[in-house]
Amino acid sequence: MGEPLFRRLALLGFGLIGSSVARVARERGGLAAEVVANARTEATLERVRELGIADRCEIDPARAVEGADCVMLCAPVGAYAALAQAIAPHLRPGCILTDVGSTKQSVIRDVGPLVPEGVHFVPAHPVAGTEYSGPDAGFSTLFDGRWCLLTPPPGTDAAAVEKVAEFWRRCGSMVSSMEPSHHDRVLAIVSHLPHLIAFTICGTADDLEGESRQQVLQFAASGFRDFTRIAASDPVMWRDVFLNNREALLEMLARFTEDAQAMARAVRWGDADYIEDRILRGRKIRRSLIELKQA
Amino acid sequence: MGEPLFRRLALLGFGLIGSSVARVARERGGLAAEVVANARTEATLERVRELGIADRCEIDPARAVEGADCVMLCAPVGAYAALAQAIAPHLRPGCILTDVGSTKQSVIRDVGPLVPEGVHFVPAHPVAGTEYSGPDAGFSTLFDGRWCLLTPPPGTDAAAVEKVAEFWRRCGSMVSSMEPSHHDRVLAIVSHLPHLIAFTICGTADDLEGESRQQVLQFAASGFRDFTRIAASDPVMWRDVFLNNREALLEMLARFTEDAQAMARAVRWGDADYIEDRILRGRKIRRSLIELKQA
Repeated sequence: MGEPLFRRLALLGFGLIGSSVARVARERGGLAAEVVANARTEATLERVRELGIADRCEIDPARAVEGADCVMLCAPVGAYAALAQAIAPHLRPGCILTDVGSTKQSVIRDVGPLVPEGVHFVPAHPVAGTEYSGPDAGFSTLFDGRWCLLTPPPGTDAAAVEKVAEFWRRCGSMVSSMEPSHHDRVLAIVSHLPHLIAFTICGTADDLEGESRQQVLQFAASGFRDFTRIAASDPVMWRDVFLNNREALLEMLARFTEDAQAMARAVRWGDADYIEDRILRGRKIRRSLIELKQA
Repeated sequence: MGEPLFRRLALLGFGLIGSSVARVARERGGLAAEVVANARTEATLERVRELGIADRCEIDPARAVEGADCVMLCAPVGAYAALAQAIAPHLRPGCILTDVGSTKQSVIRDVGPLVPEGVHFVPAHPVAGTEYSGPDAGFSTLFDGRWCLLTPPPGTDAAAVEKVAEFWRRCGSMVSSMEPSHHDRVLAIVSHLPHLIAFTICGTADDLEGESRQQVLQFAASGFRDFTRIAASDPVMWRDVFLNNREALLEMLARFTEDAQAMARAVRWGDADYIEDRILRGRKIRRSLIELKQA
């Protein structure tokens, strides 16, 4: 890979994504000469030390970003405003400030106004994840072949954007740029709504009366099992995603609910053709995904 | 395994389940000395011959069941009434008539009245499946460690019920009996509703306007990908399941919709505690599943 892209990379938040980035940096080289870890709790940093996946640990975000030429926010998006406030005065001129959050308009809203003159703000979203969280959950191949979406505000320094793009390519990702509002709409349907639905149906099942609930657990067929896997994802991260992509998520949920009600009506009135047609629509999407090798 | 349970087993319908049963019979022994295959189309039977997974193929269901001591309906549940009508006069006395359908009240309603005196009717549901269908999709380990639920009507011959139970145990399944209405409620939440939701959200995505739809395909994150996998399941089978478990499915969908609307309200009004609480409820179900080794 030659020269590392950054001399000092500060990762603020060390869950699935942060710890995966750290592992890529450690295992592949070419990303950062030094990785500084910051997390909300000492317990997490202690685990990072045990895992040996960072060069230095700092519980104070202001100290963590000192002298860094790249700072990456990897905490739940709801924590960004406070983090940005804490680090802003300590960012060195020319530094790149980027993030990995699943919502982009909220990040620009919360962090943008706090970015000091001379610091380059490049919001990014690696579209990759599993249902596991915490520093133990990360792995260095998480980003391989996955998209990373950049949503730089107008006027962002082109060299800084290219550096972040190159960072993610070296992590194994494909990189694309898009409008923040467009990002939030697309992610609302491919990721945020599926998670909301999965959490909800698991809650609906959990609410069932005694015997039925037991049997739900006992006889969980393939459909429900897959939903519970998604529903095992990190609660704070997802709570923050829902709250920070409100408009797009509510719109997609409204569309989905209309469609589910139309299905309910077809079931009630025995409209076999309608049901079959909608099922075939769903299959079409699956086929397209397989053709695009995203399945 | 010793003596086979049945001398002649007729499988009416040769999709994922029927062809898997045939493979178990072929590979493990102890189930049936002879397997007769019936399917709706000659093309399917031709494929069954090529695969060599049945001893004999019969396109006429009446001929397929002749002399059989066990007849198993493995077609979509919407086809049961016509199939039962066609075979009823040809079932030999003492024969066991069973099925593998995902809805049990409808099977008892459609098939029960047509069962001749002296034939033992034992409705069953192996709770196993994949998103693939057709005679090529089956495999002999499909039922290993999965539940098979029996819903015999009151007064069913106990020896016949035990024989069907033993059949499924020899297929690798755990067997349990339950009330048909109870079965339909439990399956509505663990299987039928998840499928309805998966088909629906894939349709919702497919309806999106041009550019968004393309990007949905391009950036499908883990949540949506899992839904499309479920949504790849057989359209006719699922159409029939929805239409034949109407009451329970609509009730569970109504409960789910209420819960989704409560989540929507919490997102709209920023009720972080409510959202986190519901997410944690979903995770609890996942943990219970893992403890019960159903995950």
